[in-house]
Amino acid sequence: MRHATFPGRIVMVGFGCVGQGVLPVLEPALGVARGRTTIVTPGAECPHVAARLGAELIVTALTPGNFEQVLSPLLHEGDFLLNLSVHVSSLALIEFCRRRGALYLDTCCEPWLGRYDNPRLSASERSNYALREEVLAWSRDHPRGPTALLTQGANPGLVSSFVKQALLQMASDLGLALPRPQVPQDWPRLAQALDVKVIHIAERDTQTTSRRKLRDEFVNTWSVDGFVDEGLQPSELGWGTHERHWPADAGRHGHGCGAAIYLERPGVATRVRSWTPLEGSYHGFLVTHAESISIADYFTLREGGRVAYRPTVNYAYHPCDDTVLSLHELAGRNGQLQQRHRILRDEIDSGTDELGVLLMGNERGVYWYGSRLSIGRARELAPYNSATSLQVVAGVLGGMVWALRHPRCGVVEPEELDHDTVLEVAAPWLGELAGVWGDWTPLRGRSELYPEETDPADPWQFLNFRVK
Amino acid sequence: MRHATFPGRIVMVGFGCVGQGVLPVLEPALGVARGRTTIVTPGAECPHVAARLGAELIVTALTPGNFEQVLSPLLHEGDFLLNLSVHVSSLALIEFCRRRGALYLDTCCEPWLGRYDNPRLSASERSNYALREEVLAWSRDHPRGPTALLTQGANPGLVSSFVKQALLQMASDLGLALPRPQVPQDWPRLAQALDVKVIHIAERDTQTTSRRKLRDEFVNTWSVDGFVDEGLQPSELGWGTHERHWPADAGRHGHGCGAAIYLERPGVATRVRSWTPLEGSYHGFLVTHAESISIADYFTLREGGRVAYRPTVNYAYHPCDDTVLSLHELAGRNGQLQQRHRILRDEIDSGTDELGVLLMGNERGVYWYGSRLSIGRARELAPYNSATSLQVVAGVLGGMVWALRHPRCGVVEPEELDHDTVLEVAAPWLGELAGVWGDWTPLRGRSELYPEETDPADPWQFLNFRVK
Ligand SMILES: NC(=O)c1ccc[n+]([C@@H]2O[C@H](COP(=O)([O-])OP(=O)(O)OC[C@H]3O[C@@H](n4cnc5c(N)ncnc54)[C@H](O)[C@@H]3O)[C@@H](O)[C@H]2O)c1
Ligand SMILES: NC(=O)c1ccc[n+]([C@@H]2O[C@H](COP(=O)([O-])OP(=O)(O)OC[C@H]3O[C@@H](n4cnc5c(N)ncnc54)[C@H](O)[C@@H]3O)[C@@H](O)[C@H]2O)c1
Repeated sequence: MRHATFPGRIVMVGFGCVGQGVLPVLEPALGVARGRTTIVTPGAECPHVAARLGAELIVTALTPGNFEQVLSPLLHEGDFLLNLSVHVSSLALIEFCRRRGALYLDTCCEPWLGRYDNPRLSASERSNYALREEVLAWSRDHPRGPTALLTQGANPGLVSSFVKQALLQMASDLGLALPRPQVPQDWPRLAQALDVKVIHIAERDTQTTSRRKLRDEFVNTWSVDGFVDEGLQPSELGWGTHERHWPADAGRHGHGCGAAIYLERPGVATRVRSWTPLEGSYHGFLVTHAESISIADYFTLREGGRVAYRPTVNYAYHPCDDTVLSLHELAGRNGQLQQRHRILRDEIDSGTDELGVLLMGNERGVYWYGSRLSIGRARELAPYNSATSLQVVAGVLGGMVWALRHPRCGVVEPEELDHDTVLEVAAPWLGELAGVWGDWTPLRGRSELYPEETDPADPWQFLNFRVK
Repeated sequence: MRHATFPGRIVMVGFGCVGQGVLPVLEPALGVARGRTTIVTPGAECPHVAARLGAELIVTALTPGNFEQVLSPLLHEGDFLLNLSVHVSSLALIEFCRRRGALYLDTCCEPWLGRYDNPRLSASERSNYALREEVLAWSRDHPRGPTALLTQGANPGLVSSFVKQALLQMASDLGLALPRPQVPQDWPRLAQALDVKVIHIAERDTQTTSRRKLRDEFVNTWSVDGFVDEGLQPSELGWGTHERHWPADAGRHGHGCGAAIYLERPGVATRVRSWTPLEGSYHGFLVTHAESISIADYFTLREGGRVAYRPTVNYAYHPCDDTVLSLHELAGRNGQLQQRHRILRDEIDSGTDELGVLLMGNERGVYWYGSRLSIGRARELAPYNSATSLQVVAGVLGGMVWALRHPRCGVVEPEELDHDTVLEVAAPWLGELAGVWGDWTPLRGRSELYPEETDPADPWQFLNFRVK
């Protein structure tokens, strides 16, 4: 499983679900020696994990006022900063890494605390679209420099490589002699040739524990703060060129790449129909995610200045059962976060995180490609992980190896990575990687009891996916 | 606990959750001797329960074609038919009982199989409103005869007595010297004097088991068939005179009492904000229920031919957690019922059914009155019961005692009963009976992040309750 030998130091900001999952694989996967990792995190979370794995723990919360002071002694040229925190600005740390000559990776484009829940900001200003545009604008002004890999976890992250792999697999299954993409624009061309109109990040997490969710408790298989933050952000989706029904509650941002739109409602209150091979059809939450925007942007084909092709891209998340109940309770509390938080890991007794991409529009049917990682398999592969965290870890490792091989690329998004490298590094951690065709559509099997506005002429309209 | 001694025979149609709960209390509460009860039910459900309690079990499914033949030998003048089944027409059995001179009680106004899910019928035709009007029309044509008590379980049933008790309690707490109601019209007068604009049947069931809901399984604390049937019926609510925002998806029936409206969507997909003292604020499912219509009708005040006062009345049901998950799964399957069904009873390891009425509009605040019955207390009180079934049993017993004391009243609804009698009989089975004031409103604590259409001038508008 060793894909690189990294001689520098690693500085990890945040040591929660993802951080604790990443730490134990740094040595086996990247040859990071004991004692070469420093963790900066405000809570004294699991100091025994850090100690056992030989990492130094600095207990501090980073703020706009102190982060340079705290991090400067820790991070030097050629070192690698992993931002695996919540509420610490990605852009601030990217700028800082640029000045220090250090590599950077995060798994979510985070702002400083106090942006997502600021009612004086518009929905557009609270969106991931806006956060991304800020980083991209900075990147345009600061084009060269050490590689800073944005949002490279499982999703966002790995799933962008899944999309490319799925497209190649579809073409191969269909016996099409399409040329293998060489330049970025070849990817949307391939997607267009395959009639891909919609891409869901289609995830069903069935991990469960015998300790039930309590009253006034939010249970999740990864960050409670992170999920509630993004769940209360406006829903966002890449907006495809085939769409012909503008949602009444949608808005355009009026600046930037233009690949995505937002809805004037939070993701936890927005449901869409989707499908995975193991779950079958389900209702998922259309929670905003960086990949909905960046995949849609990357897969935009421009011809003579106008947008000729773009798929609709969105997340359709069916979290684990206790999280569904936590969301229901949260909604009943008007979005006021529960007092108790619990991230499931060691207590999980069964379940699988089925995380993949669902490509829709081709005549042959829908195609799902992704990882099916059971809790049992995850535990065989790495300590201090659940299936969910290990899928993130796999994406982080894929991104880190790519960054070590391409250390001077400046700001990079997951779609720009070479997906072969990412998947080669990630695959051993992902359990079963499966590609499955299906005949599902969002119009199939709809009840006749209540008339609903649909567009039967094209099943792949967002109108047909959305749950009213 | 003995309130009557019934010398006749009991014929029970259906022997599921409610039937099994009722059987063991017939002797202690009504003096029904062993061997005096016959059960007609299609499945051989729990024959050991019937045998142990000395009841004869006839394994037959009643149909429009066979029910008279099956029931005639069993039911004679002065006997009591309890319809505790699903899919057996209440009206058919009421007519039959009239012919036999037998008493009748059910806990839900059921049609024969094939009505609720018939897409050729309109939403109005599939409503509880329509079912009720059919029975009331028959009753007007057949005014006198043995008492036939409609929909007298917990809710519908008991809750109508709760509403009266709550009104008296409110008046007393407020120190108002209002005359105690003497005639039916005094009740809406009292409600109006207390400024009651909205009545929720506000229920939170927290019963739970360590055996988690499986994939493709519907779990509930009472009938799966019954709940899915009513959950897929259109939402229905009594429509109050204070309402000034007509819901875009609402319809009027255009016939009958006019007290209620329906929404062109199923109850399982309609959420409303509500509150109970133990749960706090929550989102409940606005599932149609007979009491939403009959309470609204009974509490309608007419002056000079026009409707001068009526509260809005609806169910706001937060079922147990595994049922919430079952509903989420059911929605994802387009309402196609799961293969596996499980009604929780003996495996329940904790929880309480908090079932009451929430009266809203009075200046002092909202007032909740109802039963808090824990699973532990329910088991102390009666075998073969959960908290949920025992609350239904309590309503059935209250109704049966009333019917035995008033055996010649023809068709009767729960609001027409003397609530003192009902509560006196029911109370011993209900755990804690509590009346609690609160300062909740559906506008309190709403998030500012997403602008929503509300009517701040009157918190008690349905617009403000409904979750969009
Ligand atoms: N892309 C993906 O697949 C993916 C998946 C899961 C999580 N994530 C992202 O990864 C990040 C971490 O997720 P997690 O599940 O580990 O979250 P977590 O809540 O378990 O841990 C967050 C960590 O950040 C720390 N932290 C909070 N405030 C801080 C501050 N001011 N300074 C330094 N550290 C601070 C916390 O103490 C904690 O150690 C989040 O941004 C989350 O959205 C991405
Ligand atoms: N008012 C209330 O508070 C309340 C509460 C719970 C249930 N209910 C109602 O009580 C009724 C029974 O509920 P439950 O929870 O016991 O349901 P259940 O599903 O547990 O049992 C239903 C019973 O009906 C029987 N049945 C089905 N088809 C039949 C037929 N053709 N002929 C004879 N019997 C037949 C079943 O075999 C079963 O014994 C339902 O109408 C339900 O809506 C009312």
